[in-house]
Amino acid sequence: MFEQRIQIHDSLPGKDEPRFAPGVDVKKRIFRMLELKLQCGQTLKNVEVGYETYGHLNERGDNAVLIAHYFTGTSHAAGRYLESDAEPGYWDALIGPGKAIDTDRYFVVSCDSLCNINTKSPRVVTTGPCSIHPDTGRPYGKDFPIVTIGDFVNVQKALADALGVRKFHAVAGPSMGSFQVMEWAASYPEMVERVISVIPGHLSTEAYLIAVLDSWMAPILLDPLFKNGDYTPDAEPIAGLTQALKLVTLNAVHYKWARRLFNRRWADPDLSPLASLDNRFSIEVALDHTASQRARIADANSMLRLARAVQLYSIEDRKERLRSKFLIIPAESDLLMFPDYAERGVRELQALGLSAELVTLAGDGGHLDGLNVINHSSDAIRRFLET
Amino acid sequence: MFEQRIQIHDSLPGKDEPRFAPGVDVKKRIFRMLELKLQCGQTLKNVEVGYETYGHLNERGDNAVLIAHYFTGTSHAAGRYLESDAEPGYWDALIGPGKAIDTDRYFVVSCDSLCNINTKSPRVVTTGPCSIHPDTGRPYGKDFPIVTIGDFVNVQKALADALGVRKFHAVAGPSMGSFQVMEWAASYPEMVERVISVIPGHLSTEAYLIAVLDSWMAPILLDPLFKNGDYTPDAEPIAGLTQALKLVTLNAVHYKWARRLFNRRWADPDLSPLASLDNRFSIEVALDHTASQRARIADANSMLRLARAVQLYSIEDRKERLRSKFLIIPAESDLLMFPDYAERGVRELQALGLSAELVTLAGDGGHLDGLNVINHSSDAIRRFLET
Repeated sequence: MFEQRIQIHDSLPGKDEPRFAPGVDVKKRIFRMLELKLQCGQTLKNVEVGYETYGHLNERGDNAVLIAHYFTGTSHAAGRYLESDAEPGYWDALIGPGKAIDTDRYFVVSCDSLCNINTKSPRVVTTGPCSIHPDTGRPYGKDFPIVTIGDFVNVQKALADALGVRKFHAVAGPSMGSFQVMEWAASYPEMVERVISVIPGHLSTEAYLIAVLDSWMAPILLDPLFKNGDYTPDAEPIAGLTQALKLVTLNAVHYKWARRLFNRRWADPDLSPLASLDNRFSIEVALDHTASQRARIADANSMLRLARAVQLYSIEDRKERLRSKFLIIPAESDLLMFPDYAERGVRELQALGLSAELVTLAGDGGHLDGLNVINHSSDAIRRFLET
Repeated sequence: MFEQRIQIHDSLPGKDEPRFAPGVDVKKRIFRMLELKLQCGQTLKNVEVGYETYGHLNERGDNAVLIAHYFTGTSHAAGRYLESDAEPGYWDALIGPGKAIDTDRYFVVSCDSLCNINTKSPRVVTTGPCSIHPDTGRPYGKDFPIVTIGDFVNVQKALADALGVRKFHAVAGPSMGSFQVMEWAASYPEMVERVISVIPGHLSTEAYLIAVLDSWMAPILLDPLFKNGDYTPDAEPIAGLTQALKLVTLNAVHYKWARRLFNRRWADPDLSPLASLDNRFSIEVALDHTASQRARIADANSMLRLARAVQLYSIEDRKERLRSKFLIIPAESDLLMFPDYAERGVRELQALGLSAELVTLAGDGGHLDGLNVINHSSDAIRRFLET
């Protein structure tokens, strides 16, 4: 069903080369495939994605844990590249020696998605609209095909094969990562023993989330610089992309968080919002600032395709194939992937005769609690990995 | 504190003229004020707003009920203008002879806000950016001042005085209407016996809602036709306004509603969203359609100012002035004005020593349940009006 030629890049860790445990000196490696047959029917040539590994693969190749990243995320899940890095990878609280996903026991692999939006980040290697089309020698731009969560998983499968992984002890991911790990469980059930699905959607992206994703895409389309995807690097639709990323942030937080941090403060105590539309509230300016920082390293065409990939996610028609054990971890204050999605999901999995456990993250940080307080589920994850 | 000259327009119902009970033949009347001193410090000349009345004012002038409308709403709260009208006013289930707000007993007044967004609707009379600036003879456009919920209430106060209303038996409104009625209770406590606050914010618009409103404003600013508010009637920023109104709709519904109505259906069964970004899901196209219908009668500059008016709402600093009895009616599935806002509000009112009752609307229609299933609270409202 799924065939491709794989070119192992020389940065793939060799048998005797140490794989890094998180800490300092995590390395981004590059995985290359000569061809990838996409679910849309097209074939993508010269695919490359970045990945990181922590810990060591055992002889049997069955102690691997796959980590799949969220919408605006990257494969930098744990550790630091340099001691001077301000922040470690996003799930560093979970991944490392002695931690819940214990790199003394497990070989952890984390991989950049196709169409990763952070195309200008030195921490990301991805194949997407900014990549060079091998037939033209120029970036794909608007001609890059639609990709799917299933395509992301097929790249990860090829990487896993190349690394010698025979079986995943677990696959885990937050948000869009949860879609990838569910897709893994449906596409390669014999390779996935356990699924840890955090701040999840569930068996499919449902109508409301499809519409939310549409609302993220819309500001890009409104930007006159977007030019139907035919923009150039010197005139990108940054204003639209910024607004898109602002909506992503807004949808990922919670009103209690906003109340605590910003309340009704003005951005400038001397400039009343009653005097002019230009005078704004603190939270508006803060969200603008965050979004414009994010937009600097992001690409609009990539974001549109990533949003479409999430819209397209569904394993409804393959749910009978599922064989794994499931640990489903919603955040109680999530306003993007409502905890109800997870609860419904657990009921559906159990109705299929599968083992599915629900552990809810308490907190008022919204969707982001799946990153920020993931350590609260450490014990549940540790236990789940041992059963 | 609040002075103005009032010009009673000849469409104000005379002493002997019948006021209509909802049914057919509801009339839109116009209330004019020569001047209105705004909270921003500016004075607005030649203010006019539309209003409707149902039922009869008693001799003592104390059987009036004020209805304040929601963000995209108008003063058409009940009845039909013509038998052929497809829909009656938005709270027709609540207002009429024998209904919870019984027009055989109460004199109901409903008034268009300043900066009402539906400037091209024949059902709306408002003063806002599309009105003629008396000093220039041209529309205000971007020069229209910032207005507040307090300004809306001051217009309603002048109208009430002109109509001979001495006291409101109750003031009631959904969503932005709830802000207006809370503002009434804080500004004119001696005139407001009861407050019915439906799908409410509460004592102020909090940070998260400020940010949501900002997200509604942003697409307008992105539209190149917006031109910093200096657009002309032949080249309005309709694309941005449509996207803004799409967000309003999305924020006002619920995922269960979206799931039930749209699920994952494609807009066109022959055009797979996997094949092209132009091929979309049914819910995306439906929301676009609704939004573009709404945008046809709306105005971008008005919407920006209305959003700012809601952002500015706060009676926190005047809460000690409150004297009314409160009935607070959130919708359990509301994703815009979360039921938690109402619950918190009731606790705050009770902590002030005030009578505050909470009645929650069951349903999965989201914020719109405050309109669509308001009849479920009829008994509670009827009882509340009799106590």
